[in-house]
Amino acid sequence: MRELGEFALIDRINAGREQAAQVLLGPGDDAALLAAPDGRFVVSTDMLVEGRHFRFDWSTPRDIGRKAIAQNAADVVAMGARPTGFVVALGCPADTPVPVVEGIADGMWLEAVRAGGSITGGDLVLSEQWVISVTAFGDLGGQAALTRSGAGVGEVVAVSGELGWSAAGLAVLSAGADTSDPAFAHALATHRVPQPPYAEVIDLFGEHIPTALTDVSDGLLADLGHLAHASGVAIDVHAAALTDPELSALADRLEADAAQWILAGGEDHAFVGTWPSSTALPPGWRPIGVVTAGSGVTVDGTRPSGGTGWESFRGADATPTGHNR
Amino acid sequence: MRELGEFALIDRINAGREQAAQVLLGPGDDAALLAAPDGRFVVSTDMLVEGRHFRFDWSTPRDIGRKAIAQNAADVVAMGARPTGFVVALGCPADTPVPVVEGIADGMWLEAVRAGGSITGGDLVLSEQWVISVTAFGDLGGQAALTRSGAGVGEVVAVSGELGWSAAGLAVLSAGADTSDPAFAHALATHRVPQPPYAEVIDLFGEHIPTALTDVSDGLLADLGHLAHASGVAIDVHAAALTDPELSALADRLEADAAQWILAGGEDHAFVGTWPSSTALPPGWRPIGVVTAGSGVTVDGTRPSGGTGWESFRGADATPTGHNR
Repeated sequence: MRELGEFALIDRINAGREQAAQVLLGPGDDAALLAAPDGRFVVSTDMLVEGRHFRFDWSTPRDIGRKAIAQNAADVVAMGARPTGFVVALGCPADTPVPVVEGIADGMWLEAVRAGGSITGGDLVLSEQWVISVTAFGDLGGQAALTRSGAGVGEVVAVSGELGWSAAGLAVLSAGADTSDPAFAHALATHRVPQPPYAEVIDLFGEHIPTALTDVSDGLLADLGHLAHASGVAIDVHAAALTDPELSALADRLEADAAQWILAGGEDHAFVGTWPSSTALPPGWRPIGVVTAGSGVTVDGTRPSGGTGWESFRGADATPTGHNR
Repeated sequence: MRELGEFALIDRINAGREQAAQVLLGPGDDAALLAAPDGRFVVSTDMLVEGRHFRFDWSTPRDIGRKAIAQNAADVVAMGARPTGFVVALGCPADTPVPVVEGIADGMWLEAVRAGGSITGGDLVLSEQWVISVTAFGDLGGQAALTRSGAGVGEVVAVSGELGWSAAGLAVLSAGADTSDPAFAHALATHRVPQPPYAEVIDLFGEHIPTALTDVSDGLLADLGHLAHASGVAIDVHAAALTDPELSALADRLEADAAQWILAGGEDHAFVGTWPSSTALPPGWRPIGVVTAGSGVTVDGTRPSGGTGWESFRGADATPTGHNR
């Protein structure tokens, strides 16, 4: 990479890319220009650090690129917005082989297009440690933003997307289990490239708009805790609604606790929201609990003990890698 | 920092901040929401790595925060847009004292407000190496974006802002000179906190809109090279228009070459643009050269030898710190 140089490498990873229609000016000038037809835009940013949020011995560069975009796209979608574009900054060691950067860029592009946008610009710098920073944009299409603060007492809590499978994949990798075992394939794939159900959030709401919405990135209980706090309510989760026999079978093999993965794992980037009990849930959503008066999150009426989610600094000692809000 | 935890620290550095009017939803949800009254928005991103782009023994945390915002705001302004907001991601070691993060945040806020925006969101993660990633947004107010590609043969090249003083400050620090010497004060201040002349670009154009515009971040010749390449023209710079007696006196003291600082230094975040020769230059702009047919950049008709600017990877061996596009 040092031989090729920053500008030549940027030219190479941008070559042949087709920008989304809403990108009015892509990479190559002082800044990019994106359309914001709504007159507003949603923006979210995440930083991923090698060894903490991703590992090159556990994921391909392409997977790392996809995941970096997916988790940021999920934040945009969790506001009820359609992803429109992404800017990325990479800090990488001077001896990084060019194909590693190209692989990350390819993965980023793949997922950006899947989410409905493109990579509209970026930065590339030398750094001893690998760092990936992504900023994602979205358009609300004239709708109100779906914040965490609108949940009301008596409402239904529902989820779209998988829970616990990313944590299971991380457990497989951490345990040094045989990653070629087909029984681990789905967990590993989910950990390496989460598949946020973008379409369920944006396209299928119809008349079934949630009162509050967030994505599950820190862990279900932690993220519900943020939502409950922002809304000034309590949430009770029904354990029976969260059981997953396939995940339990996998947990047994690793002598792990599937419930812990589901409640505290995060990183699947499922979406969780609240709806008035009189409203039918949109297709693809399943009820998992209720909004009650008070504060905090309980499981079947009991306040859970033990880890309930991820926090970057204090959680750092407990978990080697894999989490980012 | 590890004791305080990510969420508590984020709460602390956001406490008491007042978001700009165009920020419809600030930090605390899955994403922020900004107004884009123009129906488009400009976006630029930069990553700064400790030891390469900043050093805690050379700058205060507050200065580092200001500079990180200033260089991104300059990119937005260089498109002819008004800065509206910024999102930031910080990667910092677990043993970072909380006041260091607070100082960086204070500096970022100070400069964001100076540029016309606010810090609308961010991320905070553990990292062995300090990394700061900033993404800046701007609004064009119904005007066309001022790209690098509009320069025409026969036009005047003009500059607003200082050139070479940031490089001089870096030279003072690199040489281990007495930083308390008043003779070095302006150079050091400029290196630590560049002062892009935001107002000259946006407010004073009036009828004097440039045909092309960029900011000087890689170095004057390098950035003019990008502009010339994008416009399919050549540029000849007049050395006599660039002399700076005060800077020359400083260079003599350090046995350095002021012309090299001016032509290749970058990082002052001056702005350089092109205007038809029939158009009067806006207030605050001074002519430094002409656009000609051909390609590349010359000084008084001669192609310069030696370093002409900064490139992150290939330049890395030559310069210890201080540059970012």
